[in-house]
Amino acid sequence: MHKVALVVEYDGSRYHGFQYQANAPTIQAEIELALKRLTGEDIRVLAASRTDAGVHARGQVVSFRTQASFPPSVWLRAFNHYLPAAISVRQAYLSGYEFDVRRQATSREYRYSILNSPAPAPLKRTFSHFFPHPLDVAAMDLACRELVGEHDFSSFTPAPVVRPVRTVYRAAVERRGEMVTFNIEASSFLPHQVRHTAGCLLQVGRGRLGVEQFRDLFGARRRGLAGPALPPNGLCLMKVNYPVPLGEQHEDL
Amino acid sequence: MHKVALVVEYDGSRYHGFQYQANAPTIQAEIELALKRLTGEDIRVLAASRTDAGVHARGQVVSFRTQASFPPSVWLRAFNHYLPAAISVRQAYLSGYEFDVRRQATSREYRYSILNSPAPAPLKRTFSHFFPHPLDVAAMDLACRELVGEHDFSSFTPAPVVRPVRTVYRAAVERRGEMVTFNIEASSFLPHQVRHTAGCLLQVGRGRLGVEQFRDLFGARRRGLAGPALPPNGLCLMKVNYPVPLGEQHEDL
Repeated sequence: MHKVALVVEYDGSRYHGFQYQANAPTIQAEIELALKRLTGEDIRVLAASRTDAGVHARGQVVSFRTQASFPPSVWLRAFNHYLPAAISVRQAYLSGYEFDVRRQATSREYRYSILNSPAPAPLKRTFSHFFPHPLDVAAMDLACRELVGEHDFSSFTPAPVVRPVRTVYRAAVERRGEMVTFNIEASSFLPHQVRHTAGCLLQVGRGRLGVEQFRDLFGARRRGLAGPALPPNGLCLMKVNYPVPLGEQHEDL
Repeated sequence: MHKVALVVEYDGSRYHGFQYQANAPTIQAEIELALKRLTGEDIRVLAASRTDAGVHARGQVVSFRTQASFPPSVWLRAFNHYLPAAISVRQAYLSGYEFDVRRQATSREYRYSILNSPAPAPLKRTFSHFFPHPLDVAAMDLACRELVGEHDFSSFTPAPVVRPVRTVYRAAVERRGEMVTFNIEASSFLPHQVRHTAGCLLQVGRGRLGVEQFRDLFGARRRGLAGPALPPNGLCLMKVNYPVPLGEQHEDL
Protein backbone atom coordinates (compact mmCIF):
# COMPACT_ATOMS: atom_id res chain seq x y z
CA MET A 1 0.00 0.00 0.00
CA HIS A 2 1.07 3.56 -0.76
CA LYS A 3 -0.02 6.88 0.68
CA VAL A 4 -0.49 9.92 -1.53
CA ALA A 5 -0.97 13.59 -0.55
CA LEU A 6 -2.37 16.17 -2.95
CA VAL A 7 -2.52 19.96 -2.82
CA VAL A 8 -5.83 20.80 -4.48
CA GLU A 9 -7.27 24.06 -5.89
CA TYR A 10 -10.97 24.40 -6.61
CA ASP A 11 -13.64 26.84 -7.66
CA GLY A 12 -16.32 25.84 -5.13
CA SER A 13 -19.14 27.87 -6.79
CA ARG A 14 -21.14 24.92 -8.06
CA TYR A 15 -20.32 22.43 -5.31
CA HIS A 16 -22.06 21.65 -2.04
CA GLY A 17 -18.79 21.82 -0.16
CA PHE A 18 -15.92 19.39 0.17
CA GLN A 19 -17.55 16.54 2.05
CA TYR A 20 -19.42 13.73 0.28
CA GLN A 21 -23.23 13.99 0.12
CA ALA A 22 -25.44 11.33 -1.42
CA ASN A 23 -27.52 13.67 -3.59
CA ALA A 24 -25.40 16.73 -4.29
CA PRO A 25 -22.14 17.37 -6.18
CA THR A 26 -19.15 17.70 -3.85
CA ILE A 27 -15.39 18.07 -4.26
CA GLN A 28 -14.77 14.79 -2.43
CA ALA A 29 -17.09 12.89 -4.79
CA GLU A 30 -15.30 14.30 -7.85
CA ILE A 31 -11.87 13.36 -6.49
CA GLU A 32 -13.02 9.85 -5.56
CA LEU A 33 -14.59 9.39 -9.00
CA ALA A 34 -11.33 10.44 -10.70
CA LEU A 35 -9.45 8.05 -8.41
CA LYS A 36 -11.80 5.18 -9.29
CA ARG A 37 -11.23 5.82 -12.99
CA LEU A 38 -7.50 6.05 -12.45
CA THR A 39 -6.94 3.00 -10.27
CA GLY A 40 -10.13 0.94 -10.41
CA GLU A 41 -10.18 1.08 -6.60
CA ASP A 42 -12.98 2.41 -4.38
CA ILE A 43 -10.99 4.80 -2.23
CA ARG A 44 -12.04 7.23 0.51
CA VAL A 45 -10.07 10.46 0.58
CA LEU A 46 -9.54 12.66 3.64
CA ALA A 47 -9.13 16.45 3.60
CA ALA A 48 -7.30 18.75 6.02
CA SER A 49 -10.22 21.19 6.22
CA ARG A 50 -13.87 20.62 5.27
CA THR A 51 -14.90 23.63 3.21
CA ASP A 52 -18.61 24.62 3.02
CA ALA A 53 -20.84 24.91 -0.02
CA GLY A 54 -19.57 27.61 -2.38
CA VAL A 55 -16.22 28.05 -0.62
CA HIS A 56 -13.03 27.88 -2.70
CA ALA A 57 -9.57 26.47 -2.05
CA ARG A 58 -6.13 27.27 -3.37
CA GLY A 59 -4.30 24.91 -1.03
CA GLN A 60 -6.61 22.20 0.29
CA VAL A 61 -4.64 19.07 1.23
CA VAL A 62 -6.15 15.66 0.49
CA SER A 63 -4.72 12.25 1.26
CA PHE A 64 -5.53 8.60 0.52
CA ARG A 65 -4.15 5.05 0.52
CA THR A 66 -3.88 3.03 -2.67
CA GLN A 67 -2.40 -0.11 -4.24
CA ALA A 68 -1.33 1.92 -7.28
CA SER A 69 2.35 2.84 -7.38
CA PHE A 70 2.66 5.84 -9.68
CA PRO A 71 5.36 8.48 -9.39
CA PRO A 72 4.10 11.92 -8.21
CA SER A 73 4.16 13.49 -11.71
CA VAL A 74 1.90 10.73 -13.04
CA TRP A 75 -0.59 11.24 -10.19
CA LEU A 76 -0.61 14.96 -11.00
CA ARG A 77 -1.25 14.59 -14.73
CA ALA A 78 -3.63 11.63 -14.47
CA PHE A 79 -5.82 13.34 -11.86
CA ASN A 80 -6.03 16.50 -13.94
CA HIS A 81 -6.98 14.44 -16.97
CA TYR A 82 -10.02 13.03 -15.15
CA LEU A 83 -11.04 15.95 -12.89
CA PRO A 84 -13.50 18.64 -14.11
CA ALA A 85 -12.11 22.12 -14.90
CA ALA A 86 -13.29 23.50 -11.52
CA ILE A 87 -10.89 21.19 -9.62
CA SER A 88 -7.14 20.77 -10.09
CA VAL A 89 -4.35 18.88 -8.34
CA ARG A 90 -1.61 21.54 -8.07
CA GLN A 91 0.97 19.36 -6.31
CA ALA A 92 1.26 15.61 -5.69
CA TYR A 93 3.44 13.82 -3.10
CA LEU A 94 4.23 10.26 -2.08
CA SER A 95 3.91 10.65 1.67
CA GLY A 96 5.04 8.41 4.47
CA TYR A 97 2.52 5.75 5.44
CA GLU A 98 2.09 7.32 8.91
CA PHE A 99 1.08 10.70 7.43
CA ASP A 100 -2.23 12.01 8.86
CA VAL A 101 -3.62 14.87 6.77
CA ARG A 102 -5.80 16.24 9.60
CA ARG A 103 -3.94 15.57 12.84
CA GLN A 104 -0.50 16.52 11.57
CA ALA A 105 -1.70 19.84 10.15
CA THR A 106 -0.40 22.55 12.49
CA SER A 107 -2.55 25.35 11.04
CA ARG A 108 -5.00 26.37 8.32
CA GLU A 109 -4.93 29.73 6.51
CA TYR A 110 -8.15 31.25 5.16
CA ARG A 111 -8.78 34.46 3.23
CA TYR A 112 -12.04 36.41 2.94
CA SER A 113 -11.99 38.83 -0.05
CA ILE A 114 -14.28 41.87 -0.27
CA LEU A 115 -14.48 43.88 -3.50
CA ASN A 116 -14.94 47.37 -2.05
CA SER A 117 -15.82 49.51 -5.03
CA PRO A 118 -18.81 51.52 -6.36
CA ALA A 119 -19.34 48.90 -9.12
CA PRO A 120 -19.01 45.09 -9.28
CA ALA A 121 -16.06 43.47 -11.12
CA PRO A 122 -17.14 40.57 -13.40
CA LEU A 123 -13.62 39.11 -13.65
CA LYS A 124 -13.33 38.92 -9.85
CA ARG A 125 -16.91 37.95 -9.02
CA THR A 126 -16.20 34.23 -8.62
CA PHE A 127 -13.93 34.75 -5.62
CA SER A 128 -14.96 38.01 -3.91
CA HIS A 129 -17.93 39.48 -2.07
CA PHE A 130 -19.06 42.81 -3.57
CA PHE A 131 -19.60 45.59 -1.03
CA PRO A 132 -20.13 49.10 -2.45
CA HIS A 133 -19.96 51.25 0.74
CA PRO A 134 -16.93 52.90 2.37
CA LEU A 135 -14.98 50.73 4.85
CA ASP A 136 -12.64 51.81 7.65
CA VAL A 137 -9.99 49.16 7.00
CA ALA A 138 -7.72 50.39 9.82
CA ALA A 139 -10.52 49.77 12.37
CA MET A 140 -11.20 46.31 10.90
CA ASP A 141 -7.52 45.46 11.16
CA LEU A 142 -7.35 46.70 14.76
CA ALA A 143 -10.44 44.68 15.74
CA CYS A 144 -9.24 41.43 14.18
CA ARG A 145 -5.99 41.56 16.17
CA GLU A 146 -8.17 40.78 19.22
CA LEU A 147 -8.65 37.29 17.81
CA VAL A 148 -4.98 36.31 18.11
CA GLY A 149 -4.26 33.77 20.86
CA GLU A 150 -6.07 30.82 22.43
CA HIS A 151 -9.77 31.67 22.84
CA ASP A 152 -13.29 30.26 22.98
CA PHE A 153 -14.74 31.29 19.59
CA SER A 154 -18.39 30.27 20.27
CA SER A 155 -19.73 33.75 19.39
CA PHE A 156 -18.66 33.20 15.77
CA THR A 157 -20.44 29.90 15.10
CA PRO A 158 -24.12 28.97 14.92
CA ALA A 159 -23.25 25.32 15.60
CA PRO A 160 -23.14 23.59 18.99
CA VAL A 161 -19.48 22.67 19.54
CA VAL A 162 -18.10 20.49 22.32
CA ARG A 163 -14.61 22.05 22.37
CA PRO A 164 -14.93 25.64 21.12
CA VAL A 165 -11.36 26.69 21.96
CA ARG A 166 -9.00 27.35 19.06
CA THR A 167 -5.66 29.11 18.66
CA VAL A 168 -5.40 31.98 16.19
CA TYR A 169 -1.79 32.61 15.15
CA ARG A 170 -2.29 35.54 12.81
CA ALA A 171 -5.13 37.84 11.73
CA ALA A 172 -5.01 40.96 9.56
CA VAL A 173 -7.21 43.08 7.31
CA GLU A 174 -5.60 45.00 4.46
CA ARG A 175 -6.58 46.92 1.34
CA ARG A 176 -4.93 46.57 -2.07
CA GLY A 177 -6.71 48.95 -4.42
CA GLU A 178 -10.38 48.02 -4.42
CA MET A 179 -9.81 44.60 -2.78
CA VAL A 180 -10.05 44.33 1.02
CA THR A 181 -8.81 40.99 2.38
CA PHE A 182 -9.15 39.41 5.81
CA ASN A 183 -6.43 36.79 6.35
CA ILE A 184 -6.55 34.47 9.33
CA GLU A 185 -4.39 31.52 10.36
CA ALA A 186 -5.46 29.22 13.19
CA SER A 187 -4.93 25.71 14.56
CA SER A 188 -8.36 24.94 13.07
CA PHE A 189 -11.77 26.65 12.85
CA LEU A 190 -15.31 26.20 14.21
CA PRO A 191 -18.08 25.75 11.61
CA HIS A 192 -18.65 29.00 9.64
CA GLN A 193 -16.23 30.81 11.96
CA VAL A 194 -14.37 32.80 9.28
CA ARG A 195 -17.52 33.99 7.48
CA HIS A 196 -19.18 35.09 10.75
CA THR A 197 -15.99 36.85 11.84
CA ALA A 198 -15.78 38.58 8.45
CA GLY A 199 -19.42 39.67 8.88
CA CYS A 200 -18.60 41.28 12.25
CA LEU A 201 -15.50 42.95 10.85
CA LEU A 202 -17.59 44.41 8.06
CA GLN A 203 -19.83 46.01 10.72
CA VAL A 204 -16.69 47.41 12.35
CA GLY A 205 -15.60 48.76 8.96
CA ARG A 206 -18.99 50.45 8.56
CA GLY A 207 -18.66 52.09 11.99
CA ARG A 208 -21.69 50.17 13.31
CA LEU A 209 -19.63 48.16 15.78
CA GLY A 210 -16.74 49.66 17.75
CA VAL A 211 -13.53 47.76 18.37
CA GLU A 212 -14.53 47.48 22.06
CA GLN A 213 -17.97 46.12 21.15
CA PHE A 214 -16.29 43.62 18.84
CA ARG A 215 -14.12 42.53 21.78
CA ASP A 216 -17.18 42.24 24.07
CA LEU A 217 -19.19 40.26 21.52
CA PHE A 218 -16.28 37.91 21.01
CA GLY A 219 -15.57 37.70 24.76
CA ALA A 220 -19.20 36.79 25.55
CA ARG A 221 -18.57 33.30 24.09
CA ARG A 222 -22.27 32.88 23.29
CA ARG A 223 -23.11 30.72 20.30
CA GLY A 224 -24.40 32.62 17.28
CA LEU A 225 -24.00 36.08 18.83
CA ALA A 226 -22.10 37.35 15.81
CA GLY A 227 -25.03 37.89 13.45
CA PRO A 228 -25.15 36.86 9.80
CA ALA A 229 -22.21 35.31 7.97
CA LEU A 230 -20.90 36.80 4.73
CA PRO A 231 -21.60 34.72 1.60
CA PRO A 232 -19.31 31.75 0.80
CA ASN A 233 -17.95 32.98 -2.55
CA GLY A 234 -15.58 35.43 -0.79
CA LEU A 235 -13.92 32.66 1.24
CA CYS A 236 -10.88 30.63 0.18
CA LEU A 237 -8.77 28.03 2.01
CA MET A 238 -5.32 29.33 1.09
CA LYS A 239 -2.93 26.90 2.74
CA VAL A 240 -2.56 24.05 5.23
CA ASN A 241 0.71 23.95 7.17
CA TYR A 242 2.64 20.86 8.28
CA PRO A 243 5.78 20.60 10.41
CA VAL A 244 7.60 18.61 7.71
CA PRO A 245 7.38 18.38 3.88
CA LEU A 246 4.47 16.27 2.59
CA GLY A 247 6.82 13.76 0.94
CA GLU A 248 8.56 13.09 -2.34
CA GLN A 249 7.29 15.60 -4.90
CA HIS A 250 6.85 15.70 -8.69
CA GLU A 251 9.27 17.78 -10.73
CA ASP A 252 8.45 21.41 -11.46
CA LEU A 253 8.34 22.83 -15.00
CA MET B 1 -29.28 65.51 -25.96
CA HIS B 2 -26.54 64.27 -23.68
CA LYS B 3 -23.49 62.16 -24.34
CA VAL B 4 -22.38 59.49 -21.89
CA ALA B 5 -19.09 57.52 -21.75
CA LEU B 6 -18.74 54.30 -19.76
CA VAL B 7 -15.71 52.26 -18.75
CA VAL B 8 -16.94 48.66 -18.90
CA GLU B 9 -15.54 45.38 -17.52
CA TYR B 10 -16.79 42.04 -18.77
CA ASP B 11 -16.24 38.33 -18.58
CA GLY B 12 -16.55 37.53 -22.28
CA SER B 13 -16.67 33.72 -21.82
CA ARG B 14 -20.30 33.27 -22.79
CA TYR B 15 -20.59 36.07 -25.33
CA HIS B 16 -20.03 36.13 -29.07
CA GLY B 17 -17.90 39.24 -28.79
CA PHE B 18 -18.78 42.88 -28.32
CA GLN B 19 -20.57 43.65 -31.54
CA TYR B 20 -24.31 43.08 -32.03
CA GLN B 21 -25.37 39.87 -33.81
CA ALA B 22 -28.97 39.00 -34.60
CA ASN B 23 -28.90 35.44 -33.24
CA ALA B 24 -26.16 35.32 -30.59
CA PRO B 25 -25.62 36.97 -27.19
CA THR B 26 -23.21 39.92 -27.37
CA ILE B 27 -21.95 42.57 -24.95
CA GLN B 28 -23.42 45.34 -27.10
CA ALA B 29 -26.88 43.75 -27.06
CA GLU B 30 -26.81 43.47 -23.24
CA ILE B 31 -25.78 47.11 -22.83
CA GLU B 32 -28.42 48.31 -25.28
CA LEU B 33 -31.09 46.22 -23.53
CA ALA B 34 -30.13 47.72 -20.14
CA LEU B 35 -30.24 51.18 -21.73
CA LYS B 36 -33.71 50.52 -23.17
CA ARG B 37 -34.98 49.46 -19.72
CA LEU B 38 -33.34 52.48 -18.13
CA THR B 39 -34.44 55.19 -20.52
CA GLY B 40 -37.15 53.69 -22.74
CA GLU B 41 -35.05 54.79 -25.73
CA ASP B 42 -33.71 52.58 -28.53
CA ILE B 43 -30.07 53.60 -28.45
CA ARG B 44 -27.05 52.38 -30.39
CA VAL B 45 -23.83 52.29 -28.40
CA LEU B 46 -20.31 52.53 -29.83
CA ALA B 47 -17.19 50.87 -28.39
CA ALA B 48 -13.54 51.90 -28.63
CA SER B 49 -12.40 48.37 -29.55
CA ARG B 50 -14.50 45.48 -30.88
CA THR B 51 -13.49 42.44 -28.85
CA ASP B 52 -13.96 38.94 -30.33
CA ALA B 53 -16.02 36.04 -28.99
CA GLY B 54 -14.70 34.89 -25.60
CA VAL B 55 -12.39 37.88 -25.11
CA HIS B 56 -12.62 39.84 -21.84
CA ALA B 57 -12.34 43.53 -21.00
CA ARG B 58 -11.32 45.42 -17.91
CA GLY B 59 -11.40 48.84 -19.52
CA GLN B 60 -13.57 48.84 -22.64
CA VAL B 61 -14.95 52.33 -23.35
CA VAL B 62 -18.52 52.66 -24.63
CA SER B 63 -20.38 55.82 -25.56
CA PHE B 64 -23.93 56.82 -26.55
CA ARG B 65 -26.29 59.76 -26.95
CA THR B 66 -29.49 60.01 -24.92
CA GLN B 67 -32.35 62.32 -23.91
CA ALA B 68 -31.99 61.14 -20.29
CA SER B 69 -30.16 63.57 -17.99
CA PHE B 70 -28.89 61.52 -15.05
CA PRO B 71 -25.79 62.38 -13.04
CA PRO B 72 -22.84 59.97 -13.56
CA SER B 73 -23.40 58.09 -10.25
CA VAL B 74 -26.99 57.30 -11.26
CA TRP B 75 -25.88 55.99 -14.66
CA LEU B 76 -23.37 53.76 -12.86
CA ARG B 77 -25.81 52.27 -10.36
CA ALA B 78 -28.76 52.00 -12.74
CA PHE B 79 -26.71 50.21 -15.41
CA ASN B 80 -25.35 47.74 -12.88
CA HIS B 81 -28.86 47.08 -11.63
CA TYR B 82 -29.98 45.99 -15.10
CA LEU B 83 -26.81 44.38 -16.51
CA PRO B 84 -26.08 40.65 -15.98
CA ALA B 85 -23.28 39.69 -13.54
CA ALA B 86 -20.80 39.11 -16.38
CA ILE B 87 -20.88 42.82 -17.37
CA SER B 88 -20.30 45.87 -15.17
CA VAL B 89 -20.02 49.61 -15.68
CA ARG B 90 -16.91 50.47 -13.64
CA GLN B 91 -16.93 54.23 -14.35
CA ALA B 92 -19.48 56.60 -15.87
CA TYR B 93 -18.89 60.08 -17.34
CA LEU B 94 -20.92 62.88 -18.86
CA SER B 95 -18.74 63.62 -21.87
CA GLY B 96 -18.72 66.57 -24.22
CA TYR B 97 -21.11 66.25 -27.13
CA GLU B 98 -18.21 66.20 -29.62
CA PHE B 99 -16.59 63.16 -27.90
CA ASP B 100 -15.85 60.31 -30.35
CA VAL B 101 -15.09 57.07 -28.52
CA ARG B 102 -13.20 55.52 -31.46
CA ARG B 103 -11.48 58.36 -33.28
CA GLN B 104 -10.30 60.19 -30.16
CA ALA B 105 -8.77 57.07 -28.61
CA THR B 106 -5.00 57.45 -28.92
CA SER B 107 -4.19 53.84 -28.03
CA ARG B 108 -5.57 50.48 -26.83
CA GLU B 109 -3.82 48.22 -24.30
CA TYR B 110 -4.31 44.45 -24.46
CA ARG B 111 -2.95 41.68 -22.24
CA TYR B 112 -2.59 37.98 -23.09
CA SER B 113 -2.21 35.81 -19.94
CA ILE B 114 -0.63 32.35 -19.99
CA LEU B 115 -0.78 30.12 -16.91
CA ASN B 116 2.61 28.38 -17.21
CA SER B 117 2.46 25.63 -14.62
CA PRO B 118 2.41 21.80 -14.51
CA ALA B 119 -1.26 21.87 -13.41
CA PRO B 120 -4.27 24.04 -14.32
CA ALA B 121 -5.61 26.65 -11.85
CA PRO B 122 -9.42 26.58 -11.52
CA LEU B 123 -9.62 30.06 -9.94
CA LYS B 124 -7.70 31.60 -12.85
CA ARG B 125 -9.13 29.51 -15.68
CA THR B 126 -11.65 32.14 -16.82
CA PHE B 127 -8.98 34.62 -17.83
CA SER B 128 -5.82 32.67 -18.70
CA HIS B 129 -4.61 30.12 -21.24
CA PHE B 130 -3.10 27.02 -19.59
CA PHE B 131 0.28 25.97 -20.99
CA PRO B 132 2.16 23.25 -19.06
CA HIS B 133 5.57 23.28 -20.81
CA PRO B 134 8.68 25.37 -19.98
CA LEU B 135 8.87 28.81 -21.61
CA ASP B 136 11.91 30.99 -22.27
CA VAL B 137 10.30 34.26 -21.20
CA ALA B 138 13.46 36.33 -21.85
CA ALA B 139 13.42 35.23 -25.53
CA MET B 140 9.71 36.02 -25.82
CA ASP B 141 10.30 39.47 -24.37
CA LEU B 142 13.21 40.11 -26.73
CA ALA B 143 11.17 39.01 -29.77
CA CYS B 144 8.15 41.15 -28.94
CA ARG B 145 10.30 44.30 -28.74
CA GLU B 146 10.61 43.96 -32.56
CA LEU B 147 6.95 44.94 -32.81
CA VAL B 148 7.45 48.45 -31.43
CA GLY B 149 7.11 51.20 -34.03
CA GLU B 150 5.03 51.80 -37.16
CA HIS B 151 4.75 48.57 -39.15
CA ASP B 152 2.62 46.55 -41.55
CA PHE B 153 1.21 43.77 -39.31
CA SER B 154 -0.36 41.62 -42.07
CA SER B 155 1.51 38.49 -40.98
CA PHE B 156 -0.50 38.46 -37.74
CA THR B 157 -4.01 38.55 -39.17
CA PRO B 158 -5.98 36.06 -41.28
CA ALA B 159 -8.27 38.86 -42.50
CA PRO B 160 -7.82 40.91 -45.68
CA VAL B 161 -7.14 44.46 -44.46
CA VAL B 162 -6.98 47.57 -46.64
CA ARG B 163 -4.64 49.55 -44.35
CA PRO B 164 -2.52 47.04 -42.40
CA VAL B 165 -0.14 49.60 -40.86
CA ARG B 166 -0.40 50.22 -37.13
CA THR B 167 1.83 51.82 -34.51
CA VAL B 168 2.89 49.75 -31.50
CA TYR B 169 3.96 51.97 -28.60
CA ARG B 170 4.91 49.31 -26.08
CA ALA B 171 5.30 45.51 -25.98
CA ALA B 172 6.68 43.29 -23.22
CA VAL B 173 6.50 39.73 -21.92
CA GLU B 174 7.03 39.11 -18.21
CA ARG B 175 6.62 36.34 -15.65
CA ARG B 176 5.09 36.74 -12.20
CA GLY B 177 5.18 33.35 -10.52
CA GLU B 178 3.28 30.93 -12.74
CA MET B 179 1.63 33.68 -14.82
CA VAL B 180 3.31 34.83 -18.03
CA THR B 181 1.76 37.99 -19.52
CA PHE B 182 2.20 39.62 -22.90
CA ASN B 183 1.25 43.31 -22.75
CA ILE B 184 0.92 45.37 -25.89
CA GLU B 185 -0.21 48.95 -26.51
CA ALA B 186 -0.89 50.20 -30.04
CA SER B 187 -2.80 52.87 -31.95
CA SER B 188 -5.25 50.07 -32.82
CA PHE B 189 -5.06 46.42 -33.89
CA LEU B 190 -5.82 44.28 -36.96
CA PRO B 191 -8.40 41.46 -36.50
CA HIS B 192 -7.01 38.70 -34.20
CA GLN B 193 -3.60 40.42 -34.20
CA VAL B 194 -2.86 40.02 -30.48
CA ARG B 195 -3.84 36.33 -30.33
CA HIS B 196 -1.77 35.47 -33.43
CA THR B 197 1.19 37.44 -32.08
CA ALA B 198 0.86 35.63 -28.73
CA GLY B 199 0.82 32.31 -30.62
CA CYS B 200 4.12 33.20 -32.35
CA LEU B 201 5.67 34.36 -29.11
CA LEU B 202 4.72 31.02 -27.53
CA GLN B 203 6.68 29.29 -30.31
CA VAL B 204 9.63 31.56 -29.50
CA GLY B 205 9.27 30.65 -25.81
CA ARG B 206 9.35 26.94 -26.75
CA GLY B 207 12.54 27.44 -28.75
CA ARG B 208 10.76 26.46 -31.99
CA LEU B 209 11.08 29.92 -33.51
CA GLY B 210 14.21 32.04 -33.08
CA VAL B 211 14.03 35.78 -32.50
CA GLU B 212 15.43 36.30 -36.03
CA GLN B 213 12.81 34.00 -37.54
CA PHE B 214 10.14 35.89 -35.63
CA ARG B 215 11.48 39.11 -37.16
CA ASP B 216 11.49 37.55 -40.67
CA LEU B 217 7.96 36.18 -40.34
CA PHE B 218 6.75 39.57 -39.16
CA GLY B 219 8.75 41.42 -41.81
CA ALA B 220 7.32 39.27 -44.63
CA ARG B 221 3.97 41.11 -44.25
CA ARG B 222 2.08 38.14 -45.68
CA ARG B 223 -1.49 37.65 -44.44
CA GLY B 224 -1.93 34.65 -42.14
CA LEU B 225 1.74 33.71 -42.05
CA ALA B 226 1.77 33.58 -38.25
CA GLY B 227 0.05 30.23 -37.77
CA PRO B 228 -2.73 29.51 -35.25
CA ALA B 229 -3.99 32.08 -32.76
CA LEU B 230 -4.09 31.32 -29.03
CA PRO B 231 -7.60 30.86 -27.58
CA PRO B 232 -9.65 33.97 -26.69
CA ASN B 233 -10.01 33.32 -22.93
CA GLY B 234 -6.42 34.50 -22.30
CA LEU B 235 -7.04 37.89 -23.91
CA CYS B 236 -8.26 41.02 -22.14
CA LEU B 237 -8.72 44.63 -23.30
CA MET B 238 -7.09 46.41 -20.35
CA LYS B 239 -7.42 50.11 -21.16
CA VAL B 240 -8.25 52.66 -23.83
CA ASN B 241 -6.33 55.92 -23.69
CA TYR B 242 -7.59 59.41 -24.54
CA PRO B 243 -5.71 62.71 -24.67
CA VAL B 244 -8.14 64.32 -22.19
CA PRO B 245 -10.39 63.05 -19.36
CA LEU B 246 -13.64 61.43 -20.53
CA GLY B 247 -15.77 64.07 -18.78
CA GLU B 248 -17.48 64.75 -15.48
CA GLN B 249 -17.20 61.60 -13.33
CA HIS B 250 -19.24 60.01 -10.55
CA GLU B 251 -17.91 60.22 -7.01
CA ASP B 252 -15.64 57.46 -5.72
CA LEU B 253 -16.41 55.49 -2.51
